[in-house]
Parts: sequence; C-alpha cells; structure tokens
Amino acid sequence: MLNKGISEEELFTFLADRKSEDLDHDFILSSMCTVPHSVAVRAHCMFMETNLGDPGLFPGTMALEKLLINRFGSLFHCPDAGGYATSGGTESNIQALRLAKALRHDIRKPNVIVPESAHFSFRKACDILGLEMRKAPLTRDYRMDAGAAGELVDRNTIALVGVAGTTEYGMVDPIADLAKIARQHDLFFHVDAAFGGMVIPFLKKPIPFDFSVKGVTSIAVDPHKMGMSTIPCGCLLTREPDVLNSLNIDTPYLTVKQEYTLAGTRPGAPVAGALAVMDYLGFAGMKAVVTGCMKNTQRLIAGMETFGIPRAATPDVNVATFTCDKARVPGPWKVSWTCRKHLRIVCMPHVTLGRIEAFLKDIGESHA
Amino acid sequence: MLNKGISEEELFTFLADRKSEDLDHDFILSSMCTVPHSVAVRAHCMFMETNLGDPGLFPGTMALEKLLINRFGSLFHCPDAGGYATSGGTESNIQALRLAKALRHDIRKPNVIVPESAHFSFRKACDILGLEMRKAPLTRDYRMDAGAAGELVDRNTIALVGVAGTTEYGMVDPIADLAKIARQHDLFFHVDAAFGGMVIPFLKKPIPFDFSVKGVTSIAVDPHKMGMSTIPCGCLLTREPDVLNSLNIDTPYLTVKQEYTLAGTRPGAPVAGALAVMDYLGFAGMKAVVTGCMKNTQRLIAGMETFGIPRAATPDVNVATFTCDKARVPGPWKVSWTCRKHLRIVCMPHVTLGRIEAFLKDIGESHA
Repeated sequence: MLNKGISEEELFTFLADRKSEDLDHDFILSSMCTVPHSVAVRAHCMFMETNLGDPGLFPGTMALEKLLINRFGSLFHCPDAGGYATSGGTESNIQALRLAKALRHDIRKPNVIVPESAHFSFRKACDILGLEMRKAPLTRDYRMDAGAAGELVDRNTIALVGVAGTTEYGMVDPIADLAKIARQHDLFFHVDAAFGGMVIPFLKKPIPFDFSVKGVTSIAVDPHKMGMSTIPCGCLLTREPDVLNSLNIDTPYLTVKQEYTLAGTRPGAPVAGALAVMDYLGFAGMKAVVTGCMKNTQRLIAGMETFGIPRAATPDVNVATFTCDKARVPGPWKVSWTCRKHLRIVCMPHVTLGRIEAFLKDIGESHA
Repeated sequence: MLNKGISEEELFTFLADRKSEDLDHDFILSSMCTVPHSVAVRAHCMFMETNLGDPGLFPGTMALEKLLINRFGSLFHCPDAGGYATSGGTESNIQALRLAKALRHDIRKPNVIVPESAHFSFRKACDILGLEMRKAPLTRDYRMDAGAAGELVDRNTIALVGVAGTTEYGMVDPIADLAKIARQHDLFFHVDAAFGGMVIPFLKKPIPFDFSVKGVTSIAVDPHKMGMSTIPCGCLLTREPDVLNSLNIDTPYLTVKQEYTLAGTRPGAPVAGALAVMDYLGFAGMKAVVTGCMKNTQRLIAGMETFGIPRAATPDVNVATFTCDKARVPGPWKVSWTCRKHLRIVCMPHVTLGRIEAFLKDIGESHA
C-alpha cells in the first residue's frame, strides 16, 4: 500500500537526504558520465514532457532530433546519415546488431566478431538477439588485432565491431584495417564510438574512425558521455539514411504508422539537451573541452609516473590506466579497475586540473 | 561539422521556437503520457546527473529505486517483489520475455501467447528475442479469450501474456482465468499493466490483476503514464525477488559486478520523480486522480452518446472508444484511431472536465 501522502517539505527533505548520500562528483574519477552542461539542463527542463515515441504530437522536438542526427552526420563525414536518439550506447549497440541480423536473415546461425575489449553491452546484445559472439584478441597496445579478427570470419559472420575509444583503456581500434576486412567479406561494420565519438573529432590529430572510412556501416555515439548532455541520450547513426526501416514494426493508434526504435515512449528532453550543448559550444568550444580533458590526462599520467606508478597504456582518448597497488589508492577518491587489474581514471570535464592535482597530491603521499 | 557556437540567447530563442511547434496538451486527447506532476519535475531536476547504471556512485538514488520497487510491490500485493526501473513498458515487456526465455533455455523453438490486443512492443520483443508470437483472439468485449489462449499452448510455449488496461480499448484481460492456465501448464505469466497498473488499484472496485492472483510471474507498470512522472520511467516487477539475476551479465570496471538491466547508463532523475509523486499524493491522492479520470471518461461517453456517437466498449480504465466518422472530428483536437477504426480518447490527468466539455461542444456542433 502507499502511504497517506506527505507534505512537499517533508518529501524534499527526504529526497535531499538521499541525494546527500550520492558521491560528490569532485571525487568521481571512474565514470564516463559527467555533470551535464548548464545549457543541457536548461534545455532539458524546457522539453520535460515531450515524447519522441509519438512524434506527431511533438513536431518541434522531432525537428531537434533530426538536427542532432544531422550534426553527428556532418561531424562524422556523412551529412545524409540516418539514425535516431537512443537511451544510450547499449541500445545503440543492440540495435546495430539487430539491424545487421535483419539484413542477413538468410543466415541461420549468425555470428559477430567483436574485440576482447568490447563493452559488455555486446554480450547483452548477443544474448538477446541469439548471436554467437566471437572475441578477437588485442595487440599489445590494447587495440583489436585486425589480422586475428579476419581469421574469425566465416560464412555465418554477419557483423564486425570495432571500438573508437575503449571503455577500459581509451584506445581506438584500427578502424581502417577492420573496414577493409568488412568490405572484403561484405560484412556490416559497426563502430562503437559511444565514448570516443565526441572526443576523436576534436583531437589535435583526429584518428579516422567514422564514415570517412569506406566500409563503416553504423556508429554509436553518446551525448550523455563526453557530449555533456543529460541522461539518457545516445545516438545510432547509419551511413544509409533509410536502412533502419528494415526494423520497422507497425504502430497502430500513434501519430506514426511504424517505428524502428527499441523503446516506445522516448524522452525529448535529453535530445534537446544534447543539441543545446553542441550548438552552444560549436566546434571550437567542443575542441576546447576535449583539449582540456586530454591535457589533464597527460598531466595525470606524467604525475603518476613521477611517483613510480607507470601507465598501462598511452591512450588515444581521455582514459588513463596504471599499474598500481589497490591498497594505496586513498579515499574518498572513487577510481575503477580494469579486468586486467589496472587502475583506471576517466578525465571527464568535471575532473578539472585542480582535481587532478589534488588526487596526485593524495596518491603521492600514499606512495612517499 | 558543427557551427561556430552561438549565444545562449540565440540558442534558447531557437529552442523556444521549436517548442512552440509542439502541440498544446490542452488539445492532446490521444496520449497515454501526460504533463508530469510538479513534484516529479522538481525531483527530476534535483537528481538530473545521477546514473543508476553505476549505483555504487549514487547510493542515495539507488535507495530511491529500491523504494519505488517496494511501493509497487506493496501496491501489487507482494511486498518482497523484485524488479527495477526501466525506460518504459517496451523495455519491461522485452525483459519479461527475455527472462521467460532464459528460464526455459531447454526449449529450442519457444513461443509465447499474447492477446490480439497486446501492445506492439510484444512484436518487437518477439522479433528481437527470436520468439514465435501466437495471438489469442478477443471476446466480443475486447478482452483476451482465455479458452482460446489455452488452446494455443503447446510444449514449446514458454510464456503467457495478459494485459491490464489495453492500449486501444482500456480493457483488463481475465487475469485470474489466464493465471489458471499458466499454473496448469507451468508457464511464465507476464501482466502488461503499463497503463492500468497505476489505475486499477485506485478504482472503486479494483479488478484482481496483480500478484494477489496466484500464477502471475511479473508485471510491467509505467510511472510515466498514469503515475504522472517524467519520461522515461517504467518498472518491471517480479514475484520472485531474485529471479532477474538469471539475466546477469558481467560488468567489469563498474561499482557493481553484474547487471540484469537492458540499458547500461540509466537515469535516476525520473525514478526520483516517480517516487515523489507516489509519496506526495499517497494512496488517497492517487485515488482522487484516478476517480477524476474515470468520471471524465464516463462524462465523455455519456456526452458522445447524446450526439449519437456510440461507445465501442465500456472500458475498465480511462480509455474511451467510439464509432465515429473521422471527417467529423474537429481540429485542433488530437484524437487517435484504433486498428478497428474506432475513435479513441485517453482521459489522462491533463484532460480535465473543462477540456472534455470543450471537446464535446465542438464535436456536438459537427454532429448537429
């Protein structure tokens, strides 16, 4: 049973108490999410009640979703790319593999090839979709071994996956080499750029990972990660503008007749938030954010190495990893650990240089 | 490419223009979503940056999710029910069938039985999960024909689905009869109460549809529909507290080691919003809201019939349907149409008695 109802004051005192139990972002070094940008929050609040699952009711919000996809299409060198706003990287990756499967429904026991470093969402996707997941090993620098991946291809392979900005080590797989394999075998080639998609285009020397690489079929990118939007906002992009229609399901009673999305009701608010950040900052603004995060990553690596804590990898994006004794990482800092037991820190926008220096001071003392 | 960045004023002028293109809720009679309650919006904003996908960082927000599940468990007569907050009914329904499939992985060609009136998310779920979907016909009152459903069961049937508050006609399927069939054949029995779950418990005469009915395995309920929460917020409840663990996937590098959810990153904000509404209104407050919606539904049906526009069904929840000529429904009212071409109006909380009277006046004139 529900209670008798409480006053607004009681309610928000209670909620504020719970909120105070959450960790302070000042100490969160382990997350690929961040404090959303103020324009994202403002835009989110403006579109709070909108539902992209029934776009005929919200044509203005729908226009924002189209613009967001256009922005990414242009940024990823395919202005006509299709796509839509998902709930995040997991949905984008599931939908990409669902699409690959739908396009090859002639294959009865389909398999997909992912790098050992692939995000666990691919395990979910394969579990749900009934796909065999073949893991290609990594080279010593934690990138997918393209040669080994090629050897895993057989006539039941329907898709190849590369990662642009791996979750654990921040590496970009050899997308061009993988695309060559995909073209040779006529495979669907999905690039998981959930993290890197909003980093790599703004690097001093961008690494080719997007539709500029012939053979890339689809890309996942998450505005709610480095795009500093509100949660939940991912995007799935496809080179062919209309290919997602292969997933269409009839939708009676709505203002649209069919839909290919995974979710039904979909929030417009975070989509407005994502577009707001991109348009407010523009290319130069995003480049400034990414440049700052990369500088902080380099400062962190240099600082750690002066304490005798060596890097595990030299990352392509703002994820730093170290060989470090777990017992000597001081609280209240919240770091994370990779499968291979490396200390992992993501230098998100909320992890400012001041926070990096504070962390270095503390970990330096524990290593003195 | 992105633009050069624009001023905050330019940005929000542009966003406000798009917003003005969305339909005014005063005229939206077709949606199962509504304008969120003010306490939901306030709570949402308070928890804007929280991510339930990494709960160790947000223990306070995680506690709210547990409370929300507890509230529904109690309301649905199973205080110990397990579950979690999903992105909405579609994810809840996919996950319920995914669970049913995981629990019967011995069956190689599994099928599920759903009513003809099942939401289209079941078509998606079956497509994604590789399940055969068998549609049981409805009786003349638009409820699932339990006898016919029973006849569809064979040794490959893994789940039975009933709907409590159908999308098109607002009917509650004969849950008790269906539960009997499920028990006889040892089937997973999922009740889709995405809409009705926040209506039926507050009716003058609640219809048994929940865990009080022996044999009900899981229930989907959407706070972002009649729960007046912000989007996206659904819940999946299971009678067995820990059964969702069958879907666990390893999650390295996070503050949890495994997860059974569909999405990875999950917003805490709408969960706080959903709990806020339930606790603020309490049982009596929700009953008042539902009583109002049901009265408005009855007034609408009575009013339409005085114009010679007969009801298509006498609904169990606040969805009214009519035999009506499409050409004679006046703008700017936004109504919807069922597969059987009936006019359909959902009397959500934003559809006040004043709006019903205004609509009746307009449609009365077009039928004069």
